[in-house]
Amino acid sequence: MNSVTMKLQADPLILQALQEDITSEDVTTNAILPKDCQGEAELLCKQDGIIAGLDVFARAFTLLDDKVWFEFFTKEGQKLAKVVGSMQAILSAERVGLNYLQRMSGIATYTHQVVSLLEGTGITLVDTRKTTPNMRVFEKYAVTVGGGKNHRYNLSDGVLLKDNHISAAGGVAKAVALAKAYAPFVRKIEVETETLDMVREAVEAGADIIMLDNMSHDMMKEAVTLIDGRAETECSGNVTKENIAALADIGVDYISSGALTHSAPILDLSLKHLHRI
Amino acid sequence: MNSVTMKLQADPLILQALQEDITSEDVTTNAILPKDCQGEAELLCKQDGIIAGLDVFARAFTLLDDKVWFEFFTKEGQKLAKVVGSMQAILSAERVGLNYLQRMSGIATYTHQVVSLLEGTGITLVDTRKTTPNMRVFEKYAVTVGGGKNHRYNLSDGVLLKDNHISAAGGVAKAVALAKAYAPFVRKIEVETETLDMVREAVEAGADIIMLDNMSHDMMKEAVTLIDGRAETECSGNVTKENIAALADIGVDYISSGALTHSAPILDLSLKHLHRI
Amino acid sequence: MNSVTMKLQADPLILQALQEDITSEDVTTNAILPKDCQGEAELLCKQDGIIAGLDVFARAFTLLDDKVWFEFFTKEGQKLAKVVGSMQAILSAERVGLNYLQRMSGIATYTHQVVSLLEGTGITLVDTRKTTPNMRVFEKYAVTVGGGKNHRYNLSDGVLLKDNHISAAGGVAKAVALAKAYAPFVRKIEVETETLDMVREAVEAGADIIMLDNMSHDMMKEAVTLIDGRAETECSGNVTKENIAALADIGVDYISSGALTHSAPILDLSLKHLHRI
Amino acid sequence: MNSVTMKLQADPLILQALQEDITSEDVTTNAILPKDCQGEAELLCKQDGIIAGLDVFARAFTLLDDKVWFEFFTKEGQKLAKVVGSMQAILSAERVGLNYLQRMSGIATYTHQVVSLLEGTGITLVDTRKTTPNMRVFEKYAVTVGGGKNHRYNLSDGVLLKDNHISAAGGVAKAVALAKAYAPFVRKIEVETETLDMVREAVEAGADIIMLDNMSHDMMKEAVTLIDGRAETECSGNVTKENIAALADIGVDYISSGALTHSAPILDLSLKHLHRI
Amino acid sequence: MNSVTMKLQADPLILQALQEDITSEDVTTNAILPKDCQGEAELLCKQDGIIAGLDVFARAFTLLDDKVWFEFFTKEGQKLAKVVGSMQAILSAERVGLNYLQRMSGIATYTHQVVSLLEGTGITLVDTRKTTPNMRVFEKYAVTVGGGKNHRYNLSDGVLLKDNHISAAGGVAKAVALAKAYAPFVRKIEVETETLDMVREAVEAGADIIMLDNMSHDMMKEAVTLIDGRAETECSGNVTKENIAALADIGVDYISSGALTHSAPILDLSLKHLHRI
Amino acid sequence: MNSVTMKLQADPLILQALQEDITSEDVTTNAILPKDCQGEAELLCKQDGIIAGLDVFARAFTLLDDKVWFEFFTKEGQKLAKVVGSMQAILSAERVGLNYLQRMSGIATYTHQVVSLLEGTGITLVDTRKTTPNMRVFEKYAVTVGGGKNHRYNLSDGVLLKDNHISAAGGVAKAVALAKAYAPFVRKIEVETETLDMVREAVEAGADIIMLDNMSHDMMKEAVTLIDGRAETECSGNVTKENIAALADIGVDYISSGALTHSAPILDLSLKHLHRI
Repeated sequence: MNSVTMKLQADPLILQALQEDITSEDVTTNAILPKDCQGEAELLCKQDGIIAGLDVFARAFTLLDDKVWFEFFTKEGQKLAKVVGSMQAILSAERVGLNYLQRMSGIATYTHQVVSLLEGTGITLVDTRKTTPNMRVFEKYAVTVGGGKNHRYNLSDGVLLKDNHISAAGGVAKAVALAKAYAPFVRKIEVETETLDMVREAVEAGADIIMLDNMSHDMMKEAVTLIDGRAETECSGNVTKENIAALADIGVDYISSGALTHSAPILDLSLKHLHRI
Repeated sequence: MNSVTMKLQADPLILQALQEDITSEDVTTNAILPKDCQGEAELLCKQDGIIAGLDVFARAFTLLDDKVWFEFFTKEGQKLAKVVGSMQAILSAERVGLNYLQRMSGIATYTHQVVSLLEGTGITLVDTRKTTPNMRVFEKYAVTVGGGKNHRYNLSDGVLLKDNHISAAGGVAKAVALAKAYAPFVRKIEVETETLDMVREAVEAGADIIMLDNMSHDMMKEAVTLIDGRAETECSGNVTKENIAALADIGVDYISSGALTHSAPILDLSLKHLHRI
Repeated sequence: MNSVTMKLQADPLILQALQEDITSEDVTTNAILPKDCQGEAELLCKQDGIIAGLDVFARAFTLLDDKVWFEFFTKEGQKLAKVVGSMQAILSAERVGLNYLQRMSGIATYTHQVVSLLEGTGITLVDTRKTTPNMRVFEKYAVTVGGGKNHRYNLSDGVLLKDNHISAAGGVAKAVALAKAYAPFVRKIEVETETLDMVREAVEAGADIIMLDNMSHDMMKEAVTLIDGRAETECSGNVTKENIAALADIGVDYISSGALTHSAPILDLSLKHLHRI
Repeated sequence: MNSVTMKLQADPLILQALQEDITSEDVTTNAILPKDCQGEAELLCKQDGIIAGLDVFARAFTLLDDKVWFEFFTKEGQKLAKVVGSMQAILSAERVGLNYLQRMSGIATYTHQVVSLLEGTGITLVDTRKTTPNMRVFEKYAVTVGGGKNHRYNLSDGVLLKDNHISAAGGVAKAVALAKAYAPFVRKIEVETETLDMVREAVEAGADIIMLDNMSHDMMKEAVTLIDGRAETECSGNVTKENIAALADIGVDYISSGALTHSAPILDLSLKHLHRI
Repeated sequence: MNSVTMKLQADPLILQALQEDITSEDVTTNAILPKDCQGEAELLCKQDGIIAGLDVFARAFTLLDDKVWFEFFTKEGQKLAKVVGSMQAILSAERVGLNYLQRMSGIATYTHQVVSLLEGTGITLVDTRKTTPNMRVFEKYAVTVGGGKNHRYNLSDGVLLKDNHISAAGGVAKAVALAKAYAPFVRKIEVETETLDMVREAVEAGADIIMLDNMSHDMMKEAVTLIDGRAETECSGNVTKENIAALADIGVDYISSGALTHSAPILDLSLKHLHRI
Repeated sequence: MNSVTMKLQADPLILQALQEDITSEDVTTNAILPKDCQGEAELLCKQDGIIAGLDVFARAFTLLDDKVWFEFFTKEGQKLAKVVGSMQAILSAERVGLNYLQRMSGIATYTHQVVSLLEGTGITLVDTRKTTPNMRVFEKYAVTVGGGKNHRYNLSDGVLLKDNHISAAGGVAKAVALAKAYAPFVRKIEVETETLDMVREAVEAGADIIMLDNMSHDMMKEAVTLIDGRAETECSGNVTKENIAALADIGVDYISSGALTHSAPILDLSLKHLHRI
């Protein structure tokens, strides 16, 4: 993860997670280790997968003790890294570090599997805002590690006119016009469409991106033909590892999948063999 | 969720999640609705499941506008609730509200399924600390809605001597003695064991709870016989919906499962039919 | 200002500003008014101008006492509003409220003057990131009240390849390619150019927006001709009220001006005639 | 700026300003520089002026990467400093650093100009509380760099009885008495007066400082004569660079000017010539 | 306590104290009261004393549930107040509310006792900065309720030249000159003196207040004579209830006592007779 | 204090205390020392006692300047430590550092005195939740330094059924049953009893700990006999240094005393002999 993002966005959240896990003291560790000593442990991965978030994992430890250091190994075996430093810090940060790493690696692994199913199609897989609250910066990063791309980050940095906006505006054309008039001109305007009529109206209104939402396979093909390169196209709607292959021949530019961040199972990792040195 | 916990723990996190999703303004909504107006929408559940977190969902909206109100329906159909109030607030809080609700309901649903598999066995299903960072208060609550129970909340409120602690202390007996000497006396002392020797030592050292960690089925049965009611017993180690049935006859008091919080798929929910009123 | 933005972004900053001005207590007010009482005061504007931020002004008072209320008048005379409520809150919040209002109104007034100079040219005036630290949400809003538009909000929601980025990337074409490959596809790619060669290269690389930075009048005209509608165009570089008229005939789509936010003089406003009621 | 103030007051605000400018990541920089590298840039000043806030400028960079270092030059040419370190940090912190430095230097420059106009008069120029919200610690410091002095910092550390307080108290004498009885005895009591009667009453009540607010030139002279050294005197009311010379012969001890902080134009500075090293 | 101070300074601290006492949930209360209900309890005082902080006490409850209300009784009997509202809120806030109230009332009571010993002497009793960290706003307020006065609030709002400052400056005269030149002119300059020579030097340097620190009784008398009204005088140094009477005839204006805030025993108060209504 | 607790819980509170004491700048120090220089001072203890919190004391300085260093001496004389580093940091942090150290050492000293009175009795002295708001982590630690033990940390990590809970539940047995059903199984269940009937009911309900609250000496003895080792026993109720000896023969396991944290007088410490080096 970029070091500036780490300082500004990740650090406060990782610290907060450590404070969630230690509200007064780590009673067990402090009972066993009244005085601190140096130790060493190994980070093991028990499953095949894409590792994402090693730096976030490491940060959980260094936020407790900046003298803890890591040796990262090329991913040939199960052993991903060696952690060396204060045993108190290692024991107290272990769970928080792993909770981040397991989830991020789970997302990267799942994303990688889905991306593989699109290989050769020219379609780009993107994520959504269906992330875990206060985890977006980690989860969106994990998607990119897995080979996916990010859609807009949040409500402030992208314009997406959904059904509710369109009906509130009184139609696609009006909604696009309002968005063009209001939004900073550096934003592209995206419209969510459910029918071919909406697609047509969106193209004519000058939408930059047209989302085909929960359409049938045939309707999507027809929509892409209708759009004919006048806007970028995105297919959306309960896309998972299981059903994405069927979307490969539609001809859209992007497929977005909330499952990448909300339903990826974690990757099983653990910290083992802690011993004094 | 308890109203005190909501005020002290949940509110700051929900607010933070809203600020994660809106860093300057909700551009799309503000383009369409330059002046606010009143609207109404429906919360629909598209899957069978246990709903957890309706109050957290609602809080995402009322933190933006405390005049938004809700009507909650008995869960007979798909329609769970009606949201009424400022259309700006409804549009701007929708995703954050759903992100909480989907995940919490996913956990409650998965927990409920696992609990059902233990029905009649007298075994209590408990969660772990393998929660998503900064989501623990929501995820542990969701486990209880699904019929599970909570293990310790964090490192400060429970003593659990793991392999790393035991080796640092120089054995089970020493670790238990150190823990009893140090920890507030209101804490029970739990020991993680991997062999029958460790179990025996833990019982003799006066451990209150003995965790049987990643043992074989037969070894666990033997351990329970050995313990013979002198300590509470907990079975642990990659327990999921798929493999828990096999643990039903071991005779332990508790089975803990990290999967409840780290691998439950979300429950599919959405906010639909927003219209002006 | 939008009520959601007020809650999520403005409220914490206004509260912080009140805490900057009152670190223990308002000694003077508390000396004079040991017990609170009700009062009424008038908000007067001593200069012609565009008022921006009346809701921010009001929020400084209601954050101290939510029973303070306001009557806002149509802007015919000097008297803009009546403030009614706790005299303690009125006296203690006065300066913070005015500090926001004066600056925001100064920016709106200055922006309005500059926008007027572009009337009929079809050119849109936009702001920059040259805002006062921790004031951006207020200052960018004030620009829109004055009739200007917002450029990107910050480094996260817009891509602008500046000289330093271009030289780091090894040229315009490479920089644009890197940006297209990395940035979320909902972002337009803008390139800052200083020569016609850079302009040409940017157009060919598929830049969405081309900024003509500190170019001579003639070079800008030539650049616009060269671009020929293949990208949006933005003129930039020390643009002020004094020199903008000369840019009106260049034919660009946008002119950006840092002066709107960093050099607008305040509008003179004051709270007068406080009396008990 | 004092290093303790920097740690306690400035650091949190600078960090907040960086988070205002980077809410997820610096997309442009991260696109161009996927891996960090070392670079060097120059800080140039394009106008004559007094530089204030070089340490605040530097802090914006070191808060992102504490290995960034600076060489500051004696102010003979345009080149003020060299910045060396992580190119990512340099690119990402540039705008925030400059936004602080330009505004602080603008204030110092303007203050210096006004102070020069009072040279030889024995009058001390002081600032007011008309600062930008959440910028006071920077702006008041900049005033001192420009040769001005600080009036009270905020409502908690100085007693100033204004018209509204006086009328609420029922007259000058009563207001002063209440203030003396209530305020910590380490505070001087200042009274804002608008008429000679008020001046007389204030002196007799034992006010430590008497502010002559928006009085005519002659009335101020008369007031100074009347006070006759029995209290310190301060002249106040829309004082700017343009009108201050006329106040030089009044004989007051202090002249306060809100314009120092609310209307000083920025000083034009920029970071140039970034290149890898 | 002033309502503005309550909002800006006290509320965040009280909320923080509640979060210190409830890091996940109030397990006991939630076990007993799964659904909330209304209750009523009585606040009793078991000792004679001065009550300070009833509003702070009340705020602990209303921060959890703004519908909790209070009836305060005139202090004739033991029963100080009735608390009515959510039983969950009452049970969960009880300890935090009492912890504030007991300590503040203890300080007020002790202060009152000390003030009584100075009755008729014309000497004013003031506090110090020897307060409990993060409790100053409450403890200094409690001193005033007990009849004492506040010295400076903190290092930012008062100038006190102590031995360490004086030696660093190179003598009393130099220290006073530096302070006069640097400090905002609204501050009085106070000098801590330990010998008559220092007293003499301080008077001549124009100190506004002279502190006689840890001097003998006779030396203090001599010092007061020497000062002869040319500066205010403050006696300081381990002043307690036990030894203050001996200081009554020295003739100083102020006596300061750290014991008021750091050694006052608490006043015994409790919340009793909670029952459903 | 454990270094992890220091980072996660203590550091933010110490920083906050420094910001309480310095809201803009340390005016006096900055007047005297416009440029920083190196100095050295001594920490002296003027009373016999148990020192607790030297690391907290040190942290107040290093949070201002991480180059300040300390030499701690074995406690033979009055001189406890030498502080070396930035004179500005030393002067500005002195009071906050001492305020923590004096209070913590006062608690440790008082606790030690009380513990001594229980020597040989086999009774363990424990603290309560009657701590100063936002000081708990420091005060509970100080109790352990003095030889006492900690009771539960807060409402979240221990179950204690008090009179109000019991009456709300409808009796001891019901309350215990509800607590066992609700609370995480790692918590022991403690019941506060006032009569022998309640004691009997609590034992039979399976309470883990029985608190004998404000009972007569004889009743407590009878209660202990009645409990007969079936539960741990705690004696509670206005226990102080003066009255604890009388409780030594009751035969309880624990005696809890709120006085340890709410009524211990401070230990007199000071920082002296600061000089340049």
